Amino acid sequence: MSTGRLEAFSDGVLAIVITVMVLELHVPPKGHDALHDLWDYTGVGLLTYVLSFVYIGIYWNNHHHMFQIAQYVDGSVLWANLHLLFWLSLYPFTTAWLDESKVALTPTVVYGVNLLAAAIAYYLLQLRMMRQPQTGPVLRDVVGNDLKGKLSPAIYLTGICLAFVVPWLALVPFAIVAAIWLIPDRRVERYLAEHRGLAD
Amino acid sequence: MSTGRLEAFSDGVLAIVITVMVLELHVPPKGHDALHDLWDYTGVGLLTYVLSFVYIGIYWNNHHHMFQIAQYVDGSVLWANLHLLFWLSLYPFTTAWLDESKVALTPTVVYGVNLLAAAIAYYLLQLRMMRQPQTGPVLRDVVGNDLKGKLSPAIYLTGICLAFVVPWLALVPFAIVAAIWLIPDRRVERYLAEHRGLAD
Amino acid sequence: MSTGRLEAFSDGVLAIVITVMVLELHVPPKGHDALHDLWDYTGVGLLTYVLSFVYIGIYWNNHHHMFQIAQYVDGSVLWANLHLLFWLSLYPFTTAWLDESKVALTPTVVYGVNLLAAAIAYYLLQLRMMRQPQTGPVLRDVVGNDLKGKLSPAIYLTGICLAFVVPWLALVPFAIVAAIWLIPDRRVERYLAEHRGLAD
Amino acid sequence: MSTGRLEAFSDGVLAIVITVMVLELHVPPKGHDALHDLWDYTGVGLLTYVLSFVYIGIYWNNHHHMFQIAQYVDGSVLWANLHLLFWLSLYPFTTAWLDESKVALTPTVVYGVNLLAAAIAYYLLQLRMMRQPQTGPVLRDVVGNDLKGKLSPAIYLTGICLAFVVPWLALVPFAIVAAIWLIPDRRVERYLAEHRGLAD
Repeated sequence: MSTGRLEAFSDGVLAIVITVMVLELHVPPKGHDALHDLWDYTGVGLLTYVLSFVYIGIYWNNHHHMFQIAQYVDGSVLWANLHLLFWLSLYPFTTAWLDESKVALTPTVVYGVNLLAAAIAYYLLQLRMMRQPQTGPVLRDVVGNDLKGKLSPAIYLTGICLAFVVPWLALVPFAIVAAIWLIPDRRVERYLAEHRGLAD
Repeated sequence: MSTGRLEAFSDGVLAIVITVMVLELHVPPKGHDALHDLWDYTGVGLLTYVLSFVYIGIYWNNHHHMFQIAQYVDGSVLWANLHLLFWLSLYPFTTAWLDESKVALTPTVVYGVNLLAAAIAYYLLQLRMMRQPQTGPVLRDVVGNDLKGKLSPAIYLTGICLAFVVPWLALVPFAIVAAIWLIPDRRVERYLAEHRGLAD
Repeated sequence: MSTGRLEAFSDGVLAIVITVMVLELHVPPKGHDALHDLWDYTGVGLLTYVLSFVYIGIYWNNHHHMFQIAQYVDGSVLWANLHLLFWLSLYPFTTAWLDESKVALTPTVVYGVNLLAAAIAYYLLQLRMMRQPQTGPVLRDVVGNDLKGKLSPAIYLTGICLAFVVPWLALVPFAIVAAIWLIPDRRVERYLAEHRGLAD
Repeated sequence: MSTGRLEAFSDGVLAIVITVMVLELHVPPKGHDALHDLWDYTGVGLLTYVLSFVYIGIYWNNHHHMFQIAQYVDGSVLWANLHLLFWLSLYPFTTAWLDESKVALTPTVVYGVNLLAAAIAYYLLQLRMMRQPQTGPVLRDVVGNDLKGKLSPAIYLTGICLAFVVPWLALVPFAIVAAIWLIPDRRVERYLAEHRGLAD
């Protein structure tokens, strides 16, 4: 089964998730038109929006890289992919609660669990991809020891624990995960460059 | 008429339907930041969201499989496809009512009728596809006796009837349909594998 | 300039417009869970939703047919296409007003003007396509005297005038336009079939 | 890395941004069904919608032109592109505030800053594209002195300054930028035409 439509569908869902979060940002009410009103009413919303935007961007980026290698996948990958999309589709909801509650304990933990679940779902998708006949060996080679992939859940867990001390503190480890993934991953590109070089 | 754009458009609609349902999930109001508040205010919403997400995922999956076989379709398929998308596009609305009414009788029946109508629309689309000159014979071969396709409407009807006894009970048969479709359908994949093998 | 991305972007906008209209359908409030509540609160909304869904489906269908013929277009087509998408993107808004006002005079006229403007925008897009070096002659041949295209604005105008007598009456001609377009247009398909035949 | 999916994802985000703004347009409340009600309640909303629709259309158009030239891009372009999409995804929010406040000072300045940030993000994306091995030289040749690209931020800044005199005045320079970009840019098309000519 070719990957074209799986990628198109995932692009669609991610594009909508990233955009729909903007709909959860409420403009300050009438008559509150100063800059501090923007901060009072939507300051937390804008910060969490940036964070969630970066996460979705990272997932899209990694997803894009991983499926560059694949050409054919079986039905199990479709479901592993839908599982990932399910957790990512909850980001607007958990982000909105985090924002609405001004970073209270339970919403922060729920947000962290959502981040963790998405990370695990991505890991499971990657595992399924590594089992694919042609893509597998290449992907295993490219991903290597996958330090980032193994570190991220641990840092998310640290954040969830920190939330019980001071909820705001949890956002620090969450932001750290985003930061370590923002540094672009050259492994796939390097492989593609070599591969294309060999093909010539 | 090539199927590329029909698939892209369907992917777009399904991606939006699946994501828009999240917008119907309302976060607990300010000051209600405990875990039981999440359950009280959005527990039913989350459960019905999962159910509807799985349905849309199944339709996307089957749609994807069916159009893998087709290359050219006539205008009647475009309309049969739009008819299917119409019923699927109502899922966010009927899911929201089911959730808002906390699974009352009429909303449950309306939800069941929506599920049933989508199943019938899919069946009609499949019938039209089987009439296509090149795709038809292959699809008829692949689909075979289509046990799942014939069982699903019957189970939906059972659910609609059960709703008149206790509305919550209806969700059991509805979930059973989702479960029997979640088991991946290897028929198309087997065909594609053989076909590709023959082409080599 | 190849048409691939123009088609993808138009598909995206149309897919969203068609789905977003569902968000304007409000479920009956808590405690109003009977079938007549659905009719009282969202009956008009569901009817206008069906009408607008059919219109968007028709535009997508015709758009799809027209761009099957084209392969390269110039920048003016991109803008003519955006102009069409602009009017179509207003459908959810004018449909929502029509629904909210329970088909009052002004909202009905505004809805009719929106339908008319979209029809004119489609006509202008078709004109621009007919000026394209390679696509033009083929399209002119395929479209022919374009009876439907010329009749539709006249029927919309009739509807707008009828709205001043009884607003509900306007929906009759509006529905008639939808009906005459639902009959599939075999001209493009016939051309493609012949053309493909000749190429073999 | 091929550009196909980057274009598809950008198309998705832009298609949603352009459509989601319609959701921010609120229909006049029940019983306010006259034409002046439409003007009173959504007049400003419709005007700012048109303006923002035109901006997104322009960005899509230029984005489309720029990526027609590229075939392979590296990871840095993915992030430069996501950076642009971030600022564009805020348009529905800043447009809604501009509209809600009936063009008050701070919302107008915030809207202007959003426009400016998107223009800078596009400029940075263009810079990254010019560094790409194969695409770079061609793009540099095609873009030339990029008068429009350099003028736009200056005009946006003028608008932001004018907002401090009379907020409404700022919309004049903002509209001027839209107008100078609406005039289609023949440079890329000319290049593609020549290039295709040479290839034959």
